[in-house]
Amino acid sequence: MSIRVAIIGAGPSGMAMLRAFQSARQKGAEVPEFVCFEKQSDWGGIWNYTWRTGLDQYGEPVHGSMYRYLWSNGPKECLEFSDYTFEEHFGQPIPSYPPRAVLHDYIMGRVEKAGLRAHVRFNSPVRWVDYSDATGQFTLTVKDNVKDALYSEVFDYVVIASGHFSTPNVPHFPGIEMFPGRVMHAHDFRAADEFIGKDLLVVGSSYSAEDIASQCYKYGAKSITFSYRTRRSNFKWPSCFTEKPLLEKLDGRVAHFIDGTTAEVDAVILCTGYLHHYPFLPDDMRLKSANRMNPPDLYKGVMWEKNHKLFYLGMQDQYYTFNMFDAQAWYVRDIILGRITLPSDETIAADIAGWLAKEGTIETAFDAIDFQTDYMKELIPATDYPMFDLDAVAALFKVWEHDKERDIMGYRDNSYTSIMTGNTAPPHHTKWIEALDDSFEAFINPPAVAAE
Amino acid sequence: MSIRVAIIGAGPSGMAMLRAFQSARQKGAEVPEFVCFEKQSDWGGIWNYTWRTGLDQYGEPVHGSMYRYLWSNGPKECLEFSDYTFEEHFGQPIPSYPPRAVLHDYIMGRVEKAGLRAHVRFNSPVRWVDYSDATGQFTLTVKDNVKDALYSEVFDYVVIASGHFSTPNVPHFPGIEMFPGRVMHAHDFRAADEFIGKDLLVVGSSYSAEDIASQCYKYGAKSITFSYRTRRSNFKWPSCFTEKPLLEKLDGRVAHFIDGTTAEVDAVILCTGYLHHYPFLPDDMRLKSANRMNPPDLYKGVMWEKNHKLFYLGMQDQYYTFNMFDAQAWYVRDIILGRITLPSDETIAADIAGWLAKEGTIETAFDAIDFQTDYMKELIPATDYPMFDLDAVAALFKVWEHDKERDIMGYRDNSYTSIMTGNTAPPHHTKWIEALDDSFEAFINPPAVAAE
Repeated sequence: MSIRVAIIGAGPSGMAMLRAFQSARQKGAEVPEFVCFEKQSDWGGIWNYTWRTGLDQYGEPVHGSMYRYLWSNGPKECLEFSDYTFEEHFGQPIPSYPPRAVLHDYIMGRVEKAGLRAHVRFNSPVRWVDYSDATGQFTLTVKDNVKDALYSEVFDYVVIASGHFSTPNVPHFPGIEMFPGRVMHAHDFRAADEFIGKDLLVVGSSYSAEDIASQCYKYGAKSITFSYRTRRSNFKWPSCFTEKPLLEKLDGRVAHFIDGTTAEVDAVILCTGYLHHYPFLPDDMRLKSANRMNPPDLYKGVMWEKNHKLFYLGMQDQYYTFNMFDAQAWYVRDIILGRITLPSDETIAADIAGWLAKEGTIETAFDAIDFQTDYMKELIPATDYPMFDLDAVAALFKVWEHDKERDIMGYRDNSYTSIMTGNTAPPHHTKWIEALDDSFEAFINPPAVAAE
Repeated sequence: MSIRVAIIGAGPSGMAMLRAFQSARQKGAEVPEFVCFEKQSDWGGIWNYTWRTGLDQYGEPVHGSMYRYLWSNGPKECLEFSDYTFEEHFGQPIPSYPPRAVLHDYIMGRVEKAGLRAHVRFNSPVRWVDYSDATGQFTLTVKDNVKDALYSEVFDYVVIASGHFSTPNVPHFPGIEMFPGRVMHAHDFRAADEFIGKDLLVVGSSYSAEDIASQCYKYGAKSITFSYRTRRSNFKWPSCFTEKPLLEKLDGRVAHFIDGTTAEVDAVILCTGYLHHYPFLPDDMRLKSANRMNPPDLYKGVMWEKNHKLFYLGMQDQYYTFNMFDAQAWYVRDIILGRITLPSDETIAADIAGWLAKEGTIETAFDAIDFQTDYMKELIPATDYPMFDLDAVAALFKVWEHDKERDIMGYRDNSYTSIMTGNTAPPHHTKWIEALDDSFEAFINPPAVAAE
């Protein structure tokens, strides 16, 4: 019986795992049988836009938190795959901040060209994972939603790649149960259209709050009131934006903040983050973590300390994204292939403790960028994933932070140089604030694509 | 080791099960240990209003489909407990169509007075149920969401009372993914306020569609367009209502129907029903059923044909509700207590087949009322649940149907006579269409309650 690897989730992390195995196979290595279980009817994870919210057509929690009109909020040059560049995919350089459909096309292109779709079982939520000490193997219980039937299969390794931006963290505020308008979490946000002309309360101050507020402003919201928990943002918001401290309560349409001020609003959007949620895992295999740079109990951020056949991908708070998932997937692959020799349990524990201590020294966004850059520098050289200039990426993240602080509504009009190809991105034909059509066709010059 | 019964869900059905055991104990019987597992932080099931939609604070699917401003859509005289009347609870007769808070108070009053809360473990979704042929027992794996930990316990009987109006059935219509306004299922509807002044498309023609459309009209929606799958309703809707056949597609804000007509709408509310969904059950114990009067594989509508220690409560499409759950719970209790002797497997199979054949003869709503009345007539005499005049209830259901047909916006102003007490309900102090405050206090005359 050959070695079998189960991958849970076919989003960016799961697809990186598929690609990692395929890359080794392509180079002549013998790789285990790998099977990817995906709850959705298509792959792409959170980049696979769905209009559905809450529960899907089979009664499963909807994975997607993606909305229409989302454009990358970081330069594509920071997330480029080092083994598959934007230029290779599009046949031409493209601007630095693509909309969702374009990024989706890019990440799908690599796995589709590699013929990996056959490794994915769609409409297949994993109900339960068991590990047997006796056999040293995992049993996965999977629901085939098309057949409406459960089945079980045995695997030697399990890779959890189910994401951690799908289960909303939804705090209660007094009076929210009687608010006479829409109350929603960012997870259920799908488009700005219904908020045209509205006064919005956006609770939160991280990426979702920033971006959903910006989208709503761009498409015609009347005003945005942010409520932050810890501190005011560094951004120069347009004049119809206000920043307030934490929401204390809602009284009808009136929001009361802890500084005693109020605002009358039409809708409440809770951009209050996400939970790590793994309802298919027993407690002794289940990651319990807040959204942080260094989730606990994982060696090199990927291997479960208490079971070296169990892995997690992409569970970090993220500056690096697609290429970090690659670095992790290649690393996991090489542990499974025996190319990476694991040190003693003591050394593993010390390594985990070391990263935990290092995480504790993070004070600023720049520290966090450097932390994750150091992590990338440790992972990539351990495998054959093509190394790239990580200091250049870190520098670009810092430029991006400055660009946002300078012009939160205009930073997406900047162009940067690809670390992979050395080519500078062309400016987009339209300023972001004026680009209301976020379709693939509107972004990528259609005649040029046709002539490719 | 004493006999142990697990009840899954503390809504109206689960509470009926608790009450059934307590009633027997009160009369001196020795009853098994019974433990009820409830996902929500309070009991009352769907009557326990929550502002939350989608996933709850622990990442579990939200159970509630209840909305503010919901008033009973059937006479309270049809759902009255025969062992605990409205008059006993309120100390006075009350009008026939109470709002949610009043009905909630009534159903909670019985179990609170009986001191049954200690039998319920809250914040405790059941993750998995296993049955062992070797031991003849069930193992339940339960998540304690407060402790964030799983645990397992063994039971001799399992009663599934988790409801079947919590997992939405959400069909796709072409263009819905680009509709520039709110798209929601009835499950996520919480209040009519956000639809004031709006043109609404309500897809569906059953109770949810009827009632959500009526609520939105009452609170100020501009127009309602129904889209029905099978046939136009029998109701005389106000002039701002239109009934259209099935939705074919959405093109921007324009809804296209299969008869070639169109309507421009601001929001889409899918009142397209619910799925039976039991993600915690293996296939050989899992009820697979549409919403129908006679779900398959259940003896007397409650006992799993293939495992006589497994029961389902309240899984029928319903005319009878609270008192039917009672009749079922008392019946299940008496099987467990050995008071009801089960016939041979052949007789059980023949009985199930008989009800299936009888269900097949249902053609009209009146037939369905008679079908469920016959079912009640078979259940109640088998236990000590107090019998009541079921023919009178059936007749009242038919009067109610006529009252709705005569005046869909006024039928809730009618008063009926209690089958249990013989007393006629007083008229409500305000016509339903004008009663915008649906609170307990506004409905029940506060001084009279205080003087009780």
